[in-house]
Amino acid sequence: MSFDSLDALRARLAGMPDPDQAALEGAAARNGQLTKPPGALGRLEDLAQWYAGWRGTPRPDLDAPQVIVFAGNHGVAARGVSAFPPEVTVQMVANFEQGGAAINQLARTFGARMDVVPLDLDQPTADFTKGPAMTEGEVVAALRAGWDAVDPGADLLVVGEMGIGNTTSAAAIAARLFGGDAADWTGRGTGVGAAALALKTQVVADAVALHGVATDGLDVLMRLGGRELAGMAGAIARARSLRIPVIMDGFICTAAAACLARTQDGALDHVVAGHQSAEGAHGRMLDALGKEPLLSLGLRLGEGSGAALAIGVLKGAIACHSGMATFAEAGVSDG
Amino acid sequence: MSFDSLDALRARLAGMPDPDQAALEGAAARNGQLTKPPGALGRLEDLAQWYAGWRGTPRPDLDAPQVIVFAGNHGVAARGVSAFPPEVTVQMVANFEQGGAAINQLARTFGARMDVVPLDLDQPTADFTKGPAMTEGEVVAALRAGWDAVDPGADLLVVGEMGIGNTTSAAAIAARLFGGDAADWTGRGTGVGAAALALKTQVVADAVALHGVATDGLDVLMRLGGRELAGMAGAIARARSLRIPVIMDGFICTAAAACLARTQDGALDHVVAGHQSAEGAHGRMLDALGKEPLLSLGLRLGEGSGAALAIGVLKGAIACHSGMATFAEAGVSDG
Repeated sequence: MSFDSLDALRARLAGMPDPDQAALEGAAARNGQLTKPPGALGRLEDLAQWYAGWRGTPRPDLDAPQVIVFAGNHGVAARGVSAFPPEVTVQMVANFEQGGAAINQLARTFGARMDVVPLDLDQPTADFTKGPAMTEGEVVAALRAGWDAVDPGADLLVVGEMGIGNTTSAAAIAARLFGGDAADWTGRGTGVGAAALALKTQVVADAVALHGVATDGLDVLMRLGGRELAGMAGAIARARSLRIPVIMDGFICTAAAACLARTQDGALDHVVAGHQSAEGAHGRMLDALGKEPLLSLGLRLGEGSGAALAIGVLKGAIACHSGMATFAEAGVSDG
Repeated sequence: MSFDSLDALRARLAGMPDPDQAALEGAAARNGQLTKPPGALGRLEDLAQWYAGWRGTPRPDLDAPQVIVFAGNHGVAARGVSAFPPEVTVQMVANFEQGGAAINQLARTFGARMDVVPLDLDQPTADFTKGPAMTEGEVVAALRAGWDAVDPGADLLVVGEMGIGNTTSAAAIAARLFGGDAADWTGRGTGVGAAALALKTQVVADAVALHGVATDGLDVLMRLGGRELAGMAGAIARARSLRIPVIMDGFICTAAAACLARTQDGALDHVVAGHQSAEGAHGRMLDALGKEPLLSLGLRLGEGSGAALAIGVLKGAIACHSGMATFAEAGVSDG
């Protein structure tokens, strides 16, 4: 069994593995011998070594990425915080299952297996301006669904989400975890107008005020999150237990991940930020987590789309690291 | 025959095709119907429509990218402007041909055909602080080698380079085309120290002073360029004639492309900037050309590596555009 309470998950998070030091050292040594000027591949060099450490080998491959899209519905959507009606969540799940969404195309482009995990779509979470979004039993079930969805044979994990109303949830989580005003964290999501944005900001402010008593990131996740956010958090935690590196997606995914980081220091050491979303506060949240995005292309779709696009960058980094000739092998003068 | 003089190439550049308007309009209409909030794929949406226009179809594929790496040697290398000796150019060409360089791994990762075009490596260009780097015959031969290297069946072109001393050439071109001081455009290249950087900056200043009489971009290319820069420029021009979109690489590639832009307005309309190099002045050069880079990951390797990495971004953009379901097809409410 994975865990049957938030305390049991807290205990799991406190005992997670670290990267393999010998692999990190071997990868650094290899990087210094490859046929390029020192540092000339920039962040690709850091990425490849980070990946090597987690995979436990100085010359890793990346050929079995997994994308998991979690979907959930939010009671707070009834407050009118989204530009789309709540029935779009289940319609988009069907679109994922039929291969018609953006994430399907991106997963296929980068050779990733894709799984869709709808979480009790007929049971929206409670409106978190009136009480906790989920009971402990509900959030644990969603966390476990995420935990169990990770393929132990994967060598990279991307998690994404679909859930009408979930930028409101993510903004409330961020405001609660990182402080500041509700307006600092609340954006247009799928594209709300000015009046709905003002309402959404008030909803976030009300939620933060009500849940100021939360004790740590997992408690915040239960009170202000949603099932798909908990699913992502559970999957990210499971990936750590399996030493599978993770590419984090945008605003909502980062809020879910932040709940782990604010429960256990270093809980996101195996996670890289795939992109910076156009959702205004995402950059601020990445800064708070100390994560520098790989891409910044104005995406704000969710579904794991920005992270999936970054699979290509990571594949390129690892292909260079593991495939290039050394100066000695190629007979090239090393300056 | 392609062209037998710079004037003949100038005439070709003046008569190049534009993107297909019907394809642009069809692609824009399709983009508006896909199952995502409007604009939620950010720059991917712009990229896909731009690509569709050049390929002449509203729903294009990208499955035959070509990477061409041009190599040349520079007389100015004898001045001590590089951290590596000139023999590295021919050694790296062998590494390209044997599949051991970074660009080989990236081309393979993104399914690109790769060609290597060494250009008279045993005949360095003349030291451009003393006279023109090339005669008209020499620069035309290199431009034609680039022109002829493009596969007419390719649906995307990446051009890259190898040539010890060529950041000095690129800096001189940029300073001559865009103005400012030599120091504004001169950087550390493969990694020169402070003394070599000061010398390199003086070399650039001397070159710009000597060749202030240049008349247009192609004249600047002849006077301050190198064979591999001319090869890249010729290939970019040929791609335009074939309506093949181009991803531009870093500092040296952009300097070569700038010679076309400063010969004929709009000559780079079919070109997107793949990345912003860590070579300090690359961002300034992209700004001057009005090109926003797709990636900014601190690469400064050349070889076409940054542009090849961006093939993944473009593949993702086109896969989404051409593969996603519309709201009507998927039965999703469109807000």
